[in-house]
Parts: sequence; structure tokens; C-alpha cells
Amino acid sequence: MRVIVGLKEMLAWANKMRQQGHRIGFVPTMGYLHDGHFSLIERARQVDDIVVCSIFVNPAQFGPQEDFGRYPRDLARDESLTEKAGVDILFCPRAEDIYPDGFKTRVSVESLSGKLCGRDRPGHFGGVTTIVAKLFNLVKPHNAYFGQKDAQQFVIIRQMVEDLNFDIQLHMLPIIREKDGLALSSRNKYLNDSERKAALVLSRAIKQARGLFERGIRTAEEILAGAEAEIAKEKLARLDYLALVDMASLEAVKVIAGAPVLLAMAIRIGGVRLIDNTIFNEENLWKTTWN
Amino acid sequence: MRVIVGLKEMLAWANKMRQQGHRIGFVPTMGYLHDGHFSLIERARQVDDIVVCSIFVNPAQFGPQEDFGRYPRDLARDESLTEKAGVDILFCPRAEDIYPDGFKTRVSVESLSGKLCGRDRPGHFGGVTTIVAKLFNLVKPHNAYFGQKDAQQFVIIRQMVEDLNFDIQLHMLPIIREKDGLALSSRNKYLNDSERKAALVLSRAIKQARGLFERGIRTAEEILAGAEAEIAKEKLARLDYLALVDMASLEAVKVIAGAPVLLAMAIRIGGVRLIDNTIFNEENLWKTTWN
Repeated sequence: MRVIVGLKEMLAWANKMRQQGHRIGFVPTMGYLHDGHFSLIERARQVDDIVVCSIFVNPAQFGPQEDFGRYPRDLARDESLTEKAGVDILFCPRAEDIYPDGFKTRVSVESLSGKLCGRDRPGHFGGVTTIVAKLFNLVKPHNAYFGQKDAQQFVIIRQMVEDLNFDIQLHMLPIIREKDGLALSSRNKYLNDSERKAALVLSRAIKQARGLFERGIRTAEEILAGAEAEIAKEKLARLDYLALVDMASLEAVKVIAGAPVLLAMAIRIGGVRLIDNTIFNEENLWKTTWN
Repeated sequence: MRVIVGLKEMLAWANKMRQQGHRIGFVPTMGYLHDGHFSLIERARQVDDIVVCSIFVNPAQFGPQEDFGRYPRDLARDESLTEKAGVDILFCPRAEDIYPDGFKTRVSVESLSGKLCGRDRPGHFGGVTTIVAKLFNLVKPHNAYFGQKDAQQFVIIRQMVEDLNFDIQLHMLPIIREKDGLALSSRNKYLNDSERKAALVLSRAIKQARGLFERGIRTAEEILAGAEAEIAKEKLARLDYLALVDMASLEAVKVIAGAPVLLAMAIRIGGVRLIDNTIFNEENLWKTTWN
């Protein structure tokens, strides 16, 4: 595995690989890698013959009151794990190269970026789309891999890729969970024992909602009430949002029909913000609005 | 010469050319081509072995009160002239493919886009940067060519290309003028005989300013006063703006020192808006802030 820091080196390498006819798979991350990330790397290894993983804790997607400073970082560990996972290039650009003095450009998908997590985190998704556009131009991948854990992020990046005609195939892979149901996240590290236990309320709320759906219930009112009641049982959790939305437009739906619908939620436990989600009619995801 | 309309066909062709090792030169235009455009095509033919010219009258860069509807179009003429000029691909995408239903993304270079022409044309440069980002992704050029006539546009596109790490070399070529000094523009077609004569006030103002500069005058106050007095002589012309700005930041300068400085102006004659400019210390343009 080769570690690349410089932008020009990354670009030169990407051009060389493309000229040699290689297919480049790309897994962009903020590091502190867990099995969710490794499921993306594994899929990339199956699909592409070259795998690039980037690690960049992107200051532009953190709000001033957020956890940029304390976001967990362990590059030595990530380097060792990505090498074992079969990554070819670990791309770790410097913040001062990514955002040099005088940086002025922003890529935004406005109507999707203000919803759900975007309401609590103004500017967050504009920071995400801008860095992803930059990384796409530097890495020049054929395929890029994202986790469903950040479903809204994927919806927004997909819209950007379609709108700006990026010649990149996107892949969204399932949420990876601990045995007890907690979705993997680098932020789980922030939780103490009682908070870690309380965080299970997310997967319990999703289980509750999926149970209602499997028993034939289709109205947003009933499904949201079921999930909300589950969350209310956990006194340590404060609900940021809970929403049932169309998977393409992120607009609220009243009834789940045949189109893919996202149940998404964010809670706070102590100072930690956690998200989770599930997709109903996922089997129609790639057939209908997505292809 | 091949005419391509479909986006997927353009992309497939660009990928094929790149795989074959060709160098792609790109001249994006809104059509109704004149010798300014052909100077760009000619340079592209010298530098690259494949030349793509696009024609797309971009609705997103016109304001609601502007001339999108009546902007001159003559595709048959453009097709014949580009073929003679040695263009390999004439790319003429459809508006409904470029901006399909549900299009949501915007690329913006905010702090530069509100200045000069951007003050009179809110949203204009956001429309420009968004379409240029799209065309770059579809055509995948190694080099792209723009005219100095739209100097602010070039400054903004250059900032976008640097900020988003587009792997494209940009070229700005000199303004091409009629024998009497009028800068070539597709919009000159709007002018009747007396307006056409009045439009010469632009190049006269520039000549006046350059004369002052050559006589050693370096203060913005004196140079702007000289140009403004020239414009004031023409009763048919109404001044939109006249500014002396740093070529990289587009911020007003008080004194012309060694860095490249842009004298830019826009006037209205009847219902027609015309722009022109000149660059002082142009010899330092590619050595200092630009490279």
C-alpha cells in the first residue's frame, strides 16, 4: 500500500492508473475506521482492480459548536488496517492543501441540504458536497462507495453526481451493526457505558418501525408514533428529529406506497449526536428513482 | 466533424479519446460564433490533437429581464464555420438534458461572483460556473480556452478550477476587435448603425486609460477619471460600472503597482449591454498570481 499526501501526486497517480486501463474504486472516509468502512473497501476490491481510501477530517462539514477538534483520529491504526484490507492507495491530504488561502468555491445541493440532519447542522452538507467534488477530481474513480448509515449524505452526493455529470458510479452499502444492534460509527467512541446502552434506543426504534411495517401498517403517523414511543422510553436520549421521507426528494411522505422511503432519526445522548435509519421498499431502490 | 447532442455520447467519446491517448482541447461557447471564438479554436488546434467546441445558450446564466430569448442563434452557420475551422466535435446539448426535472446543484464562487458584472447580473456567474463544471465533466478536456473579453468570467472559472481540483489547464486569449476598435461580441448584432457607432466609446475609454498608464500615471483615481470622461462624451451610452481591480481578487486597487490589474467596464446603449476591458501589467499575469 502506498500512502499519498500531496494533491499533485494523487492526481498523477490517478491519471497513470487510468492510462493503464485500471478501474479505480474509491472509499472516502474521515478515518478512525470501523467495519462499516471495511465493508465498503471489501466491495471495492470485488468491483475494481485498484482501491483508493481517503482519510480527511473535513473541517468544512463541522459547525463551530461541533466536534471537529475532538473527532477521533488514529492514522497509524488506520494505515495498518487499510493495508491488511487490501487498499492500494491511502490518500491523506493536508487541510492546508485542500483549503488553501483564498479558497472560495462551494458546491451545494440546496433543497436537499436543509432537511433532516441539515436542519440541525447548517452548512454541513455544503461542506460534504464540496469536499467530495474535490476528492472525485483528485482520485478520478470509476466507482465510489458510501455507507447507508449516512443515507441523506448519499442522496445528496448522488444528486450532485447526476447534476454535475460526474462520470462515477455510486454504491450505497448496508449499515453494519454491533451484535446488539448499535450502528457502527466513529462517534460511538464518545459514549460511556450507560450512554452506550442508551444508544440502543436507535436500533430499537427502527426495529419497532419495521415491525409495524411488516404487520401491514403504512401510514407515517402510525410508524413515526411507534418509533417515537420507543425513543421516549430512554430517558438519556433527546430526539433531534425523526422523519419518514421519500428517498429521492427527502420530502415527508404520509403513506408508504411502492417507492423507497427513508425512516431517519438523530438523537443526542449527553454531548453525543447519533444517527440511524432504515429504508422501506429498499428492493425498489435501484429499479425506480435510482439507476 | 461530428455533431454530438446526447450527454452519454459525449462522455463515451471523451473516454474513448482519452483511452487512446489523445489530448482534448475545449472551447465552450454560446454559439453565433465570431473571430473571437475562432481565435480560441485556432489555439486549441495548435495545442491539442482533438478539439471540442460546445454551443449551449445557457438559460441559467441569464436573468429574468435579460436577453435569453432573443440571444442570436444560427446553428447551421456555426456548424459550417466550425467544420471549416477544424473542430473535431461540435457538442450541442439539449437544455432538457443539461437541466432535467429535479436539477438541484449549484457551483458558486461567491466572493468573486457579486462584483463588477455580478452586481448588475445577480446569479449570472453561479450559472456560468455550474454549466462550466458540467461541461468539463462531460468533455473531459486537458485544456480549455476562454476569451479575455469576459475577463471576470475567466477569473471566476480559474478560481473554481483551482478550488475544485479540476485537472484542466485554462487559457485566456486576447480580445479580438473590429478594425475600428469594437470588441467582437455576439451581442453586437443587436446594435443599429448609430448605436454601433456609439459603442466605440468602450474602446476609446480603454485607449484613453492605456494612454494615461503609458504616460506614467498609476493612480486609480486618474485612470478611472480619464476613462469616465471619455464615456461621458457619448450621449447614447449609460455607464453600468467602471472599475480598476486586482486581477486575482477583483478587489478595487488604488494604485497600479506590479501585479496584474484589470480595467473593466460595462455600458448600456439602448437596450444592449456591452462590456470591454484591458489588463495592465499583463506581462506579469502568468508569472505572479497565475500559473
